[in-house]
Amino acid sequence: MKLWGTRFTKTTDSLVHQFNASLSFDVRLYDEDIRGSMAWARGLSRAGVLTQDEAREIIAGLEAVLSELATDAFVFDPADEDIHTAVERRLTELVGPVGGKLHTGRSRNDQVTTALRLYLLREIASLRGSLVQLQVAIVDKAAAHLDIIMPGYTHLQQAQPVLFGHWLMSFFWRFQRDWDRLAEAARRTSALPLGAGALAGNPLGVDRHALAVDLGFATVMENSVDAVCDRDYVVDLIAWASLLQMHLSSLAEDIIIWSSSEFGFVQVDDAYATGSSLMPQKRNPDSLELIRGKSGRIVGHLAGTLTTLKGLPSTYNKDLQEDKEALFDTLDTVALELPIAAGVIRTLKVDRARMAAALDDSMLATDLADYLVRRKVPFRQSHRLVGRVVRRAEELQVQLRELDLAEYQAIHPGFAQDLYAVLDFQRSVESRDARGGTAAAAVRIQIEQARMILEDSMSGAV
Amino acid sequence: MKLWGTRFTKTTDSLVHQFNASLSFDVRLYDEDIRGSMAWARGLSRAGVLTQDEAREIIAGLEAVLSELATDAFVFDPADEDIHTAVERRLTELVGPVGGKLHTGRSRNDQVTTALRLYLLREIASLRGSLVQLQVAIVDKAAAHLDIIMPGYTHLQQAQPVLFGHWLMSFFWRFQRDWDRLAEAARRTSALPLGAGALAGNPLGVDRHALAVDLGFATVMENSVDAVCDRDYVVDLIAWASLLQMHLSSLAEDIIIWSSSEFGFVQVDDAYATGSSLMPQKRNPDSLELIRGKSGRIVGHLAGTLTTLKGLPSTYNKDLQEDKEALFDTLDTVALELPIAAGVIRTLKVDRARMAAALDDSMLATDLADYLVRRKVPFRQSHRLVGRVVRRAEELQVQLRELDLAEYQAIHPGFAQDLYAVLDFQRSVESRDARGGTAAAAVRIQIEQARMILEDSMSGAV
Amino acid sequence: MKLWGTRFTKTTDSLVHQFNASLSFDVRLYDEDIRGSMAWARGLSRAGVLTQDEAREIIAGLEAVLSELATDAFVFDPADEDIHTAVERRLTELVGPVGGKLHTGRSRNDQVTTALRLYLLREIASLRGSLVQLQVAIVDKAAAHLDIIMPGYTHLQQAQPVLFGHWLMSFFWRFQRDWDRLAEAARRTSALPLGAGALAGNPLGVDRHALAVDLGFATVMENSVDAVCDRDYVVDLIAWASLLQMHLSSLAEDIIIWSSSEFGFVQVDDAYATGSSLMPQKRNPDSLELIRGKSGRIVGHLAGTLTTLKGLPSTYNKDLQEDKEALFDTLDTVALELPIAAGVIRTLKVDRARMAAALDDSMLATDLADYLVRRKVPFRQSHRLVGRVVRRAEELQVQLRELDLAEYQAIHPGFAQDLYAVLDFQRSVESRDARGGTAAAAVRIQIEQARMILEDSMSGAV
Amino acid sequence: MKLWGTRFTKTTDSLVHQFNASLSFDVRLYDEDIRGSMAWARGLSRAGVLTQDEAREIIAGLEAVLSELATDAFVFDPADEDIHTAVERRLTELVGPVGGKLHTGRSRNDQVTTALRLYLLREIASLRGSLVQLQVAIVDKAAAHLDIIMPGYTHLQQAQPVLFGHWLMSFFWRFQRDWDRLAEAARRTSALPLGAGALAGNPLGVDRHALAVDLGFATVMENSVDAVCDRDYVVDLIAWASLLQMHLSSLAEDIIIWSSSEFGFVQVDDAYATGSSLMPQKRNPDSLELIRGKSGRIVGHLAGTLTTLKGLPSTYNKDLQEDKEALFDTLDTVALELPIAAGVIRTLKVDRARMAAALDDSMLATDLADYLVRRKVPFRQSHRLVGRVVRRAEELQVQLRELDLAEYQAIHPGFAQDLYAVLDFQRSVESRDARGGTAAAAVRIQIEQARMILEDSMSGAV
Repeated sequence: MKLWGTRFTKTTDSLVHQFNASLSFDVRLYDEDIRGSMAWARGLSRAGVLTQDEAREIIAGLEAVLSELATDAFVFDPADEDIHTAVERRLTELVGPVGGKLHTGRSRNDQVTTALRLYLLREIASLRGSLVQLQVAIVDKAAAHLDIIMPGYTHLQQAQPVLFGHWLMSFFWRFQRDWDRLAEAARRTSALPLGAGALAGNPLGVDRHALAVDLGFATVMENSVDAVCDRDYVVDLIAWASLLQMHLSSLAEDIIIWSSSEFGFVQVDDAYATGSSLMPQKRNPDSLELIRGKSGRIVGHLAGTLTTLKGLPSTYNKDLQEDKEALFDTLDTVALELPIAAGVIRTLKVDRARMAAALDDSMLATDLADYLVRRKVPFRQSHRLVGRVVRRAEELQVQLRELDLAEYQAIHPGFAQDLYAVLDFQRSVESRDARGGTAAAAVRIQIEQARMILEDSMSGAV
Repeated sequence: MKLWGTRFTKTTDSLVHQFNASLSFDVRLYDEDIRGSMAWARGLSRAGVLTQDEAREIIAGLEAVLSELATDAFVFDPADEDIHTAVERRLTELVGPVGGKLHTGRSRNDQVTTALRLYLLREIASLRGSLVQLQVAIVDKAAAHLDIIMPGYTHLQQAQPVLFGHWLMSFFWRFQRDWDRLAEAARRTSALPLGAGALAGNPLGVDRHALAVDLGFATVMENSVDAVCDRDYVVDLIAWASLLQMHLSSLAEDIIIWSSSEFGFVQVDDAYATGSSLMPQKRNPDSLELIRGKSGRIVGHLAGTLTTLKGLPSTYNKDLQEDKEALFDTLDTVALELPIAAGVIRTLKVDRARMAAALDDSMLATDLADYLVRRKVPFRQSHRLVGRVVRRAEELQVQLRELDLAEYQAIHPGFAQDLYAVLDFQRSVESRDARGGTAAAAVRIQIEQARMILEDSMSGAV
Repeated sequence: MKLWGTRFTKTTDSLVHQFNASLSFDVRLYDEDIRGSMAWARGLSRAGVLTQDEAREIIAGLEAVLSELATDAFVFDPADEDIHTAVERRLTELVGPVGGKLHTGRSRNDQVTTALRLYLLREIASLRGSLVQLQVAIVDKAAAHLDIIMPGYTHLQQAQPVLFGHWLMSFFWRFQRDWDRLAEAARRTSALPLGAGALAGNPLGVDRHALAVDLGFATVMENSVDAVCDRDYVVDLIAWASLLQMHLSSLAEDIIIWSSSEFGFVQVDDAYATGSSLMPQKRNPDSLELIRGKSGRIVGHLAGTLTTLKGLPSTYNKDLQEDKEALFDTLDTVALELPIAAGVIRTLKVDRARMAAALDDSMLATDLADYLVRRKVPFRQSHRLVGRVVRRAEELQVQLRELDLAEYQAIHPGFAQDLYAVLDFQRSVESRDARGGTAAAAVRIQIEQARMILEDSMSGAV
Repeated sequence: MKLWGTRFTKTTDSLVHQFNASLSFDVRLYDEDIRGSMAWARGLSRAGVLTQDEAREIIAGLEAVLSELATDAFVFDPADEDIHTAVERRLTELVGPVGGKLHTGRSRNDQVTTALRLYLLREIASLRGSLVQLQVAIVDKAAAHLDIIMPGYTHLQQAQPVLFGHWLMSFFWRFQRDWDRLAEAARRTSALPLGAGALAGNPLGVDRHALAVDLGFATVMENSVDAVCDRDYVVDLIAWASLLQMHLSSLAEDIIIWSSSEFGFVQVDDAYATGSSLMPQKRNPDSLELIRGKSGRIVGHLAGTLTTLKGLPSTYNKDLQEDKEALFDTLDTVALELPIAAGVIRTLKVDRARMAAALDDSMLATDLADYLVRRKVPFRQSHRLVGRVVRRAEELQVQLRELDLAEYQAIHPGFAQDLYAVLDFQRSVESRDARGGTAAAAVRIQIEQARMILEDSMSGAV
């Protein structure tokens, strides 16, 4: 039974049926579709379009359909092209002709986007929980490893020593921005399109504010044309996930590189690694490689959804049916990744000794330059002088602390015996104690702040 | 003069110099670079790293450099690989060795992203103004055309009559979401990275909160590693522009189609159209086609920037130099498009007669179904019955209002003489008077709301 | 049973199992995986690694597994993480320990990409058939409508009259380029990776050329490191599909616009259109809107796959598992679209009368300019003069042919009575008879060429 | 002077002029534009539209314009909106009214795409040269380092030993596929659109085959509608560059990781590295990071160009003006990268000792499994047994060769004293001597093949 079929003289080509059908992926909207329909029935009743008895009958029927779907007792019909058709078909089977009154003044156009928004709001709530759990894992791990110094890199070259916990906390803040963005996405999603009809609005006096309250939407969409074609909220979510992926892929890249036997700084727990079918000695950080790789999938969904939207005329065009699979796959992907990333962090073994062994004196070059600065040598000059020191140490194949004072003084007379005190990784780290720096005291402040933020997040206060 | 060159034994390959150089595009950051440096000099002075005299000298020197740049008197050196190097080189020429003290405790990594954020904040302020002007053009045009009925389309097929002003106002709300998103992007951009050094933070006790206040940032970035590699704000802006493009391209598509001689609903003013080199009769809506076409450019910048960021290790990697051109081109593109779109709307000629002539009775089918609903026929049944009516009219090649009552009654006895009263476009439009609908009263409410929102926007209250 | 599990001390996290598992989508490779394994068993036998009996046993076992899979009798195990593991697990159940010899000298890395290439080659063969059928539909339709003149557009503004068949044939050539590109993609896919092992090659003296012949590959990949990480062929195919989508989306856009009641040039057959749930009169060209919309999906897969590949280290990384879903979805999408597009073309109703009625004299302006050129007025001048003619006709609200000769001569004395003969659409079309032009004679040549090309395509001669 | 301006009553908005103008980027087409115009003049002359004298005059004028442009003597006019307008304007200034005859029967639509194709063909020829030089650098470097063994990685975990030259040659083959694809792109670009007019073809009997021969095109585009809107060749080139970037970014990633002090396998020459403004000891592989980062730019251009093309109606739309900047930037980027990549390879210092020191016995696990296979243990079983061996060695913290025979035999009795002979990296490498493997003999064959291919490439035989 096609709901729109009467006027047509030919049956739809069977390939076309397959092409148009969205049931295979929109079935997951059943709960939200039915909740939307119940609210609509109540709205029609309030407007006097349905009697209270009719509304009650319809709502009872919808509850029965919901229960069938929730218990897998629902039998789909080959002609059910989408979940909305299937639900309405079944409703009418259950309650008879009164079921045919439910769609009064409503259109698939406003119905579908309402269900999709409701679904997304639920998913966002769940994602926020997963995101917080990842942040908690980060903060806990950082707090537990505040005394481990490792090489900090820029351009993947050793640059300056930093605390492992400081590196890790850098991800807390990235994910905190993701948290903020997700809250904004939620806010924009929470606007009710229902009552927009096909495109022109509602002629039955249905109170859309009451509908919004009933369904838990924060606001009502103020223009019916916009209401049926707006997919900003879909793009918002996928764009959010794309940035999240950037953060996750960067975290993955760091840990993958550090898991190599050449770095050897960390070991991914067996639960998050896999072996090789040919090489039994391998411990491959597959989880992290997949997380990194799935960035492509999400960026692709973003580019794809935008490409689909580009240049569409106003109101509903069938092209918009393409919004769902990209969104659903994005949600599914992220929902799986977040707890896996949290698990990787939680169980990560940190090899303090390998980190310590990797520290090279040349990473203290900046500290040495600052030493000269304190002796009134302008930074640019001291920077150049220390460059010469580093080159001299390379020539002699010694570490900076092994270079004779005479060598230092040959380069600049400002160097004195106390320069060797500067050549200390712990001291270097501790000296960077301004807000946001790597000194343990500064990282502890970060962690305290983070804990307060997480408390707010978990209490729903934000 | 390469600032980092001392230790190197060979000169850089000349192609490599060209490859690395960013001066051609980052020169536009000169004002923000210099303002950032002045603030840094004051910060160093407050921390006791510079004497007050040194800071004064440096700031005076920077003012001189700024003035040279602002008046095109600045002479670039072939070795100036970026604007930051150029400014510092010139500063030292002007003030001597003390200029070499400016970079103390600072790194290109925190310096560049600080300047870029400042620049972006200025650009955002300007874009907000342009966006508001476009919204004003929309509201004014809609208000002035509240009595024009046109066909509303879904799937580019005539669906239901709507007011031209209602269609137009749908774009107001899309652009209002863009306004909101831009405010959020601004908020996230307004976080100070300066003081993060290369990656590990600041060892000189520079007060970063005071720096933030000095430069007008709302907050301080809480982790130095994050501070130097965060480019979320670049992605935020390009993602914002991508959604804006979706709205603009949809507006363009509508008007391009309506400008065809077959539709003939509107005429783009000559100021926004061009002719053909071969066909003198043409009036091509080039401005709109370019606006539509430039969507690709922006979506490309978004996909490209994300691809660049994917899988980068933490902290600064040279890949990040790729952030600027995409961002700048996005800003330039949008800055040109917004006033052009506003101009197109402001000067658009609306052909009331062609719109009226295009209205086909079949667009009143829904109203006819609602007529039966009011006679207690369930909507699904009435929908099917009206389908038969439409097909019958097609067979007889008459409009719905020309179809005999007997024909109607043969299809359903509920039809009576008063059905013809329903077949009226004005009545159809006016019936959709619920919030967000196309009735003139409902559109007037939209316009009032919009005007209040715009007042807030313009007063900076948001 | 994890094939790589021995050394691990913990079981994999269950979310991680789900995250790593690819069975849900790679199950479709079962036939190619088994054919690859049979060839490998023969190769090991030729190299003396397996006895002939062992090879026979293994191949018989693989045949049994194949038959189980082909008849849906195969029972999957929850631990089967991909189709390759499942097949090998079942093989060993069926034939005992000898099954454990199959994987000698082979790795998942070379095994999986071999199966994927075989699968893709089969799909390509099928796509070529569908593409030819679409081209046939185009040529047949064009040949049957060679006498219909319609407005030709640039910028969606009427430009010059063209034959409907000429417009349609323009798509033949676009799809012919797609045909060429697909042949190239096939050629590059037909290179054997098997025998590359995990990354370093084969230590057992397996003859890879014989393997290639056995499996029907045209060549052997010449470097084992390249063999295991090359996914160019995946990108090739998706890039091919992206360009195909550009052509399909353009075809769709043309027909969607022409199906509007304002244009009314064509009617999409009911088999390829759908109705509206709320508006019974609608005939929405959904098939074409979906084809247009699915362009986003494919472009997204392209951008996504490239993003995934960006910056990967050499050889196999788990990120590469992300290649399959995008590829499979691309193949499925295109396989559905091509016959639908062919069906739309084949059944498209062309409204000759509406096309004729839409022709406006201003489209003959170029012909009028050419008239002056033949009277020795330089084109640039004649172009300007005709511009004035068109404006004068607009002022007087007459068609060009209704404009008095005196008016013409007031603009340029070169105009004479015979100018009115130029104002004829048929004549205009027929005058463009150079190769590739719209004159019926020229279009007939196109059609003849096309038919010869299609004959070659269908005979497999290309 | 706007060439199309006569009929317009208002002047174009100045922002719109800036928006439409393409001179800033299409000026680089001047040579091809003029060559195309000369050929057109000859074509018009052959068709009798121009006298031989007129053609001569026009061609002489064009030569003068060309010379002005080539010597920077050309003075642009603020009204020159693109290079084509500028050239024609100047031609008419130089030769008088006869210049106005050049554009007879031609349109910007066919003129511009002809010039762009010619330009691209020239650029492709140059890119092919650069690509070959990169391949030569690879082959030479590989040939010179055939005796260096290094760890081969999968998942960035040590997997099996390989020759450095084998790793390097893997890139030869990737770039060889790029070479092939570039040849195909060239072939498709070499099709003449000129003579298609605005969209409908040529009414003057101009011989398009003669035009093609004159301009060096291989074929003639067979349909005028297709000719003016086809941008497949633009996408082809950018898609080609995207795959090239994947190869370059993978090469860059390998070398960047290997340049870290923890790996220390290679050192990028100072000519291709840069220092740090704050940390004087740094040697950052900037060139490679930029190459990797620029992948985003190119993928963005690809996604963007496709997005622009999506859903465009047939024939020319102004959106197509957006094709050029993405293409030009792609060409410029690649033209700079290829010689830089070649230089990096040519000058790369390979640290044989660090590579040797990094080799871990566990990489010989597969060889050990193969040892058992030769003793008739099925591979799957031997794989598991060796897994136990590796774990045992880890427990005892010894290398495989240090593990007592008794320990081996406790795991499987098939192990005998000769197992220690297997634990040899050289032997492991040499055993993989089948086609495409890492044995020196096999790599030498690769290199010979490569040299033959390069000879063909350089002789233009392909």
